[in-house]
Amino acid sequence: MPRKVRTREGGRREAIASAAARLFREKGFSGTGMRDLAGSVGIEAASLYNHIDSKAALLRDICFRIADACNAHLRELEAAPGLDSLGQLEAIVRFHVRLWIERLDEVLVATNEFRSLEEPWLEHFLQERRMYMRRIEAILSQGIQEGSIRPLEPYGVVLTLMSAVRGIEFWHRSRKHVSAASLESTMVELIVDGIRNSQG
Amino acid sequence: MPRKVRTREGGRREAIASAAARLFREKGFSGTGMRDLAGSVGIEAASLYNHIDSKAALLRDICFRIADACNAHLRELEAAPGLDSLGQLEAIVRFHVRLWIERLDEVLVATNEFRSLEEPWLEHFLQERRMYMRRIEAILSQGIQEGSIRPLEPYGVVLTLMSAVRGIEFWHRSRKHVSAASLESTMVELIVDGIRNSQG
Repeated sequence: MPRKVRTREGGRREAIASAAARLFREKGFSGTGMRDLAGSVGIEAASLYNHIDSKAALLRDICFRIADACNAHLRELEAAPGLDSLGQLEAIVRFHVRLWIERLDEVLVATNEFRSLEEPWLEHFLQERRMYMRRIEAILSQGIQEGSIRPLEPYGVVLTLMSAVRGIEFWHRSRKHVSAASLESTMVELIVDGIRNSQG
Repeated sequence: MPRKVRTREGGRREAIASAAARLFREKGFSGTGMRDLAGSVGIEAASLYNHIDSKAALLRDICFRIADACNAHLRELEAAPGLDSLGQLEAIVRFHVRLWIERLDEVLVATNEFRSLEEPWLEHFLQERRMYMRRIEAILSQGIQEGSIRPLEPYGVVLTLMSAVRGIEFWHRSRKHVSAASLESTMVELIVDGIRNSQG
């Protein structure tokens, strides 16, 4: 019996979290009111606080869920035996493409609305992002040293990798006759071939 | 005498336009008040209307100035003799990199705030963007046919090209020890090598 209650409460929270991601994305964090949020999940604004702490806590959840997913994926990769630097980078690009295809609301909020995080979370989030980028730069530098990756300036490459997938937002809005699988393979091939050392 | 007046008025308008781009970028179009704008150029809110029509007109100017710059550049390229498809695409990527390096406020407003345009301008802006992307797709298809470009799905490639430069926003905020020239060459090389047909 307690388990059933917990599960139902979990479902309600999950519904509130996805509604928040959708609203923060569409109207911005500061443009979204608790009333909008309550309306979109079909409960009274006053009873929203039975399920969540605050609007700020919802934003935190979204931003750090995305950051955690990126970190967990990178940690797995770094521990994967037998994957060279180029293979690791391919996996990173593929992971980001899928994130933008499958979790667009959350990833857009983490990308565009993170500046509304309160301290100390804002500083923490920025720190996580810097460290994530530096770890990818380290993989690039390793690959350049080994000869599998062209000698490009790593910071510029990481910026390009992280941003290249943002066009997926337009794909969601418009031409779905290009399949997700096709989009994924086009982006991965273009980027991976751009960094591969063909003289290597 | 009339010329001098015109020039001074032109300077004032230019100052208002750049303050608007900066504010719309930082606070969003809907988050920016006429009072903020007047304050940032040091005039009374009431006298702002001696220089401009409305906040909506300022947004229109920014969005269509960017759209016009892109269209003018593409038209020049299409008319340039002796440039093959890969050369044209390289010029397009380089143009976008410079736009994001040199005109960040305007380009971010045109990218993130265009949805606040009123009709019929919103529809017009979307139409311009679609046509711009299709003309680039046509250059890609031509290059694929000629063998200079790898047979990738053109829509996905255009999305990737247009988005890849967006990371330049982070460069502006942080590590300026990577020079603009280095950033430009890294991005152009990575992307152009990603679409070049090395079997060609």
